[in-house]
Amino acid sequence: MIRAGIVGGTGYTGVELLRILALHPEVDVSVVTSRGDAGARVDAVYPSLRGVISTTFLAPDTEILLDCDVVFFATPNGTAMQMAKPLLLNGVKVIDLSADFRLKDVVEWSKWYGMDHTSPELLPEAVYGLSEVNRAAVKSARLVANPGCYPTSVQLGFLPLLENGLLESNDLIADVKSGVSGAGRKAELATLMSETGESFKAYSVSGHRHLPEIIQGLQLISKSTIGLTFVPHLTPMIRGIHATLYAKSNASLAELQSIYAQRYADEPFVDVLPLGSYPDTRNVRGANTCHIALHQPQGGHTIVILSAIDNLVKGAAGQAVQNMNLMFGFPEEMGLLTLALYP
Amino acid sequence: MIRAGIVGGTGYTGVELLRILALHPEVDVSVVTSRGDAGARVDAVYPSLRGVISTTFLAPDTEILLDCDVVFFATPNGTAMQMAKPLLLNGVKVIDLSADFRLKDVVEWSKWYGMDHTSPELLPEAVYGLSEVNRAAVKSARLVANPGCYPTSVQLGFLPLLENGLLESNDLIADVKSGVSGAGRKAELATLMSETGESFKAYSVSGHRHLPEIIQGLQLISKSTIGLTFVPHLTPMIRGIHATLYAKSNASLAELQSIYAQRYADEPFVDVLPLGSYPDTRNVRGANTCHIALHQPQGGHTIVILSAIDNLVKGAAGQAVQNMNLMFGFPEEMGLLTLALYP
Amino acid sequence: MIRAGIVGGTGYTGVELLRILALHPEVDVSVVTSRGDAGARVDAVYPSLRGVISTTFLAPDTEILLDCDVVFFATPNGTAMQMAKPLLLNGVKVIDLSADFRLKDVVEWSKWYGMDHTSPELLPEAVYGLSEVNRAAVKSARLVANPGCYPTSVQLGFLPLLENGLLESNDLIADVKSGVSGAGRKAELATLMSETGESFKAYSVSGHRHLPEIIQGLQLISKSTIGLTFVPHLTPMIRGIHATLYAKSNASLAELQSIYAQRYADEPFVDVLPLGSYPDTRNVRGANTCHIALHQPQGGHTIVILSAIDNLVKGAAGQAVQNMNLMFGFPEEMGLLTLALYP
Amino acid sequence: MIRAGIVGGTGYTGVELLRILALHPEVDVSVVTSRGDAGARVDAVYPSLRGVISTTFLAPDTEILLDCDVVFFATPNGTAMQMAKPLLLNGVKVIDLSADFRLKDVVEWSKWYGMDHTSPELLPEAVYGLSEVNRAAVKSARLVANPGCYPTSVQLGFLPLLENGLLESNDLIADVKSGVSGAGRKAELATLMSETGESFKAYSVSGHRHLPEIIQGLQLISKSTIGLTFVPHLTPMIRGIHATLYAKSNASLAELQSIYAQRYADEPFVDVLPLGSYPDTRNVRGANTCHIALHQPQGGHTIVILSAIDNLVKGAAGQAVQNMNLMFGFPEEMGLLTLALYP
Repeated sequence: MIRAGIVGGTGYTGVELLRILALHPEVDVSVVTSRGDAGARVDAVYPSLRGVISTTFLAPDTEILLDCDVVFFATPNGTAMQMAKPLLLNGVKVIDLSADFRLKDVVEWSKWYGMDHTSPELLPEAVYGLSEVNRAAVKSARLVANPGCYPTSVQLGFLPLLENGLLESNDLIADVKSGVSGAGRKAELATLMSETGESFKAYSVSGHRHLPEIIQGLQLISKSTIGLTFVPHLTPMIRGIHATLYAKSNASLAELQSIYAQRYADEPFVDVLPLGSYPDTRNVRGANTCHIALHQPQGGHTIVILSAIDNLVKGAAGQAVQNMNLMFGFPEEMGLLTLALYP
Repeated sequence: MIRAGIVGGTGYTGVELLRILALHPEVDVSVVTSRGDAGARVDAVYPSLRGVISTTFLAPDTEILLDCDVVFFATPNGTAMQMAKPLLLNGVKVIDLSADFRLKDVVEWSKWYGMDHTSPELLPEAVYGLSEVNRAAVKSARLVANPGCYPTSVQLGFLPLLENGLLESNDLIADVKSGVSGAGRKAELATLMSETGESFKAYSVSGHRHLPEIIQGLQLISKSTIGLTFVPHLTPMIRGIHATLYAKSNASLAELQSIYAQRYADEPFVDVLPLGSYPDTRNVRGANTCHIALHQPQGGHTIVILSAIDNLVKGAAGQAVQNMNLMFGFPEEMGLLTLALYP
Repeated sequence: MIRAGIVGGTGYTGVELLRILALHPEVDVSVVTSRGDAGARVDAVYPSLRGVISTTFLAPDTEILLDCDVVFFATPNGTAMQMAKPLLLNGVKVIDLSADFRLKDVVEWSKWYGMDHTSPELLPEAVYGLSEVNRAAVKSARLVANPGCYPTSVQLGFLPLLENGLLESNDLIADVKSGVSGAGRKAELATLMSETGESFKAYSVSGHRHLPEIIQGLQLISKSTIGLTFVPHLTPMIRGIHATLYAKSNASLAELQSIYAQRYADEPFVDVLPLGSYPDTRNVRGANTCHIALHQPQGGHTIVILSAIDNLVKGAAGQAVQNMNLMFGFPEEMGLLTLALYP
Repeated sequence: MIRAGIVGGTGYTGVELLRILALHPEVDVSVVTSRGDAGARVDAVYPSLRGVISTTFLAPDTEILLDCDVVFFATPNGTAMQMAKPLLLNGVKVIDLSADFRLKDVVEWSKWYGMDHTSPELLPEAVYGLSEVNRAAVKSARLVANPGCYPTSVQLGFLPLLENGLLESNDLIADVKSGVSGAGRKAELATLMSETGESFKAYSVSGHRHLPEIIQGLQLISKSTIGLTFVPHLTPMIRGIHATLYAKSNASLAELQSIYAQRYADEPFVDVLPLGSYPDTRNVRGANTCHIALHQPQGGHTIVILSAIDNLVKGAAGQAVQNMNLMFGFPEEMGLLTLALYP
């Protein structure tokens, strides 16, 4: 039984961590912090957790986290980079669900996130927590940068093609659609039900913060230069990301299908659907699974890869627990074997 | 490990049974039937079950169910009453999620369901599976009539008041709102997204089939005659039932709150919220829990009881598994300890 | 052609006024104010108005409104009562869509709205703008208090029964369900899509601000004392209110239907549906219509009245334009003859 | 005043035609047919039309349509091609909202629609009713093939670039998202709210029937060969199509914006938004408008064109009325000046 702390427990990734960890057989959630809800019972803010979480939100403070074995940061960007160091020095492992440790290039990071990085010295050791790529490194990491939701869906979709050099890596398109919970639990006009319900739009086409993260990830896998057009969209649902990926390739669909099936055969949380399938976000809602399917319209050279995840699970909290399992030597699927909530 | 069969596996209650039973540590789902999908892999119809269910739908037939320890009927009304008898005679326990065994009065049943009952001789022994009322009888039952979704939310809401004779039982109102999954997985105009999305309406005000079931249940608890006005509504969401119940009482709110808290103190799946709370269906979505809260507007004599369940879980499949646990001596909560999916 | 001003143009009732008035043949919208968006083009904030509204939001100020013939207040409570007087003194007619002039009893008003009323001397002359009751008074009014959304749906539903003294007026129940746009266009956690989508709950059962308004309205109609239990609910859709009203009556359904049909026969915006009908909020979405249907479950003494409106139209902006038409001698339906957007 | 007939009045495009035509000052809807609802009052099936449509559905039959000046086919594919000829011979103009007359190549048509074409001799004279391209021809047409919803959004988006030869026409991608009303008003499992709500998926990637229609349209405009990858998606909302279009171009964004603005300057129903904008389907919901915006991510050679329409209006019934206006010499915008329903 390890002791876990959650910093930023009142966002959607925070409460999703609580949902998963509350039933994890090897984890005791000992500290949950929240600046805004400090002093309130966790289950008063989240009645869905009544009966399993009896703690109270504490104000965030490094001191109260030092007894933890692992601390999850489910905070806005800029918090984890300030609190991680003392925790690491005290032997506490850190899993950051924000973007603070995702980019290796600190200049690039500052450009996209609009602030100076306060712990650039930690960037080299931070392991990018996409276990399908970095499993060995995650196992021995003390600091894991948990991937973003869009980057998870896009990287898992392109990965096998890039590893095999089977596509034109300088001409990739990722047209990705996200449910509104990806925007977080913040009082904002833009994500009101009256603003987002029954409507669909693109946003941040000129440049979304997840773009450099995706390119960095794909670049590591590929031998050639990555050229990627990434267009995120807001779709009128709460959970789910669906990536529609376009790439040029001379390989046949059967060949590609076989490569994907083999590449992910041993992955517990990536599922390559049979030819002709369409991933539907509802089929992964609440689950840590990524569904992938391949298509080759009209037998041409454009390959269409469809990938679906739950942005709060495989795109955030579930992946974080998967990383925790690896870091502590637990079975990778422990606590994550829930099924999608359909319908 | 017991062997379970599911008849009618392609409706929403059927697939919800599969979702729950697939992870139940004491159950092996050995047979799943479907008239329409016979021959298809279950996980081809329901990709959300990939990795945990590897069987194929079989055509419904009593013979193939005889090896089961328990058979769940997730069928339209009129099927279970025809297949239950041979199963019971062969020692197979039966849990019927349809309405076939819910009413004790066979004439009343025929009137509401528009057909003759083919097994009236089984009605006396059928136990109404609301474990909060009939736990002892459920434990020794071989045939359980699983309550309807509306009746579960209404009965759990009125129960403590009626048991204590603290209200005018001849003047009850149940204004209940259901998500559209309650209408089942059938190709029908009325439940298309374009017909039900972004809209709200009442239906069956002149008389819904769940009315006699509710009255029968309340009558058993109460000493006095039950007079109930029941108005069901369709609300534009997939899962969830919210009952708003009105009754006249001279008791104080504090007194009532205490009675409810005590009545349900040992119930694993009924949770009386603190005074001033509002049950929200999202907080029980996917969980087998019923959230209840009491209000007394302007300190008057009208008591407002709010009760929320997931119609497919506590209102159907979850309650069925709860009954199965009792019938087989498993811990009542086994396999049902999932948390609501919020947001 | 009259000149209209809108104070508070960036809320949902404000933009709905713009949608309706932009196409009204006798109205020129000359001033639109907004504290937060002052300086921005109206159609930059609301691209749905591109091509028909070319003005810019101005900071709210009485001076710029003095040239108007009519000013609509689509503001939070507490603003209109401060700005109405100078406008009226300058011959500008005022239609207040907020609650400032709805209650005649200033003490009651202060109790429910938590502030002192700054213009109590205007309350006696303010006409409650439910034209189905007060048409003559509205025609000659210079200050109209536009009814709230809940009060409109409830009063229109109970009106004919109360006028005829055909029910027990001290035992009324109004179980009312609203779409989330009723909560306004404000950056708040509670109305995020992730918080309200796919979920249903009651709120303000202990006392909603619309309660005294409804009671005042019903009391004026009825000879006897009104006793009302009012429970509002939030339903996961954007527009629409559905009221389910319960009353005791000894009249037959046929008799009641005839009374309703006659009472509303000449009303352009109240439509009594045939017996057996169910009003569906989608059928009035975007229209200024109230659909009403009557039911008498099991032939008993409880009458169930169903009433549906679009909260932003007949419940706010449409009704305000209806009042404006009356005040300026335009045909009552002018500019309001749009059909509901189905599906 | 002309007399209009609608064949297939009980689908979503049929009822949308009724919504628009009921208020059109120059049109009397004299005949509405429906195979399934023959004999029923139109406003009993569609209460949203109460008060404006008082006719009864008739069984479809050419005879009863001969007195019409224009007949709209809002039927499944395969009906209009059988009934159009006798109507045309009797001087009745025909606007077909189905796909029967959209493709010039009858072999291609049979391949995609799976049946023989019964009136191939009419194909040459049928005018493709995209008035932004074919306005002159529409004016003098007696048979108009109304464009499909996807093709409208995609063609309007690519049009100015293709006309100017400013892109690589053999490498186009159209990633398009549609609300579920596009699937029609049919009793089908796939479009139940429980199946499509809160979920997102692609479909028909291997080849959607709108693909040859789009390619034919683009080919007519372009000098070079069209190569297009078209991926349609189902998004959990009722109305709306959002096309995200990708093309390679060496032109600058400013240059492109200027070309689009000029090309559509005189078009009443195509609106090029300012640079930096994002079309949102809610801003055209219920309106006959197409909103377009251009983006050039990271200043590269990939141009992203965003285009939004209401699939039932500019993508079907509204465009059909626009065509009717042109065919009968009415102002093009007559009856179509409604504003989008926001929120």
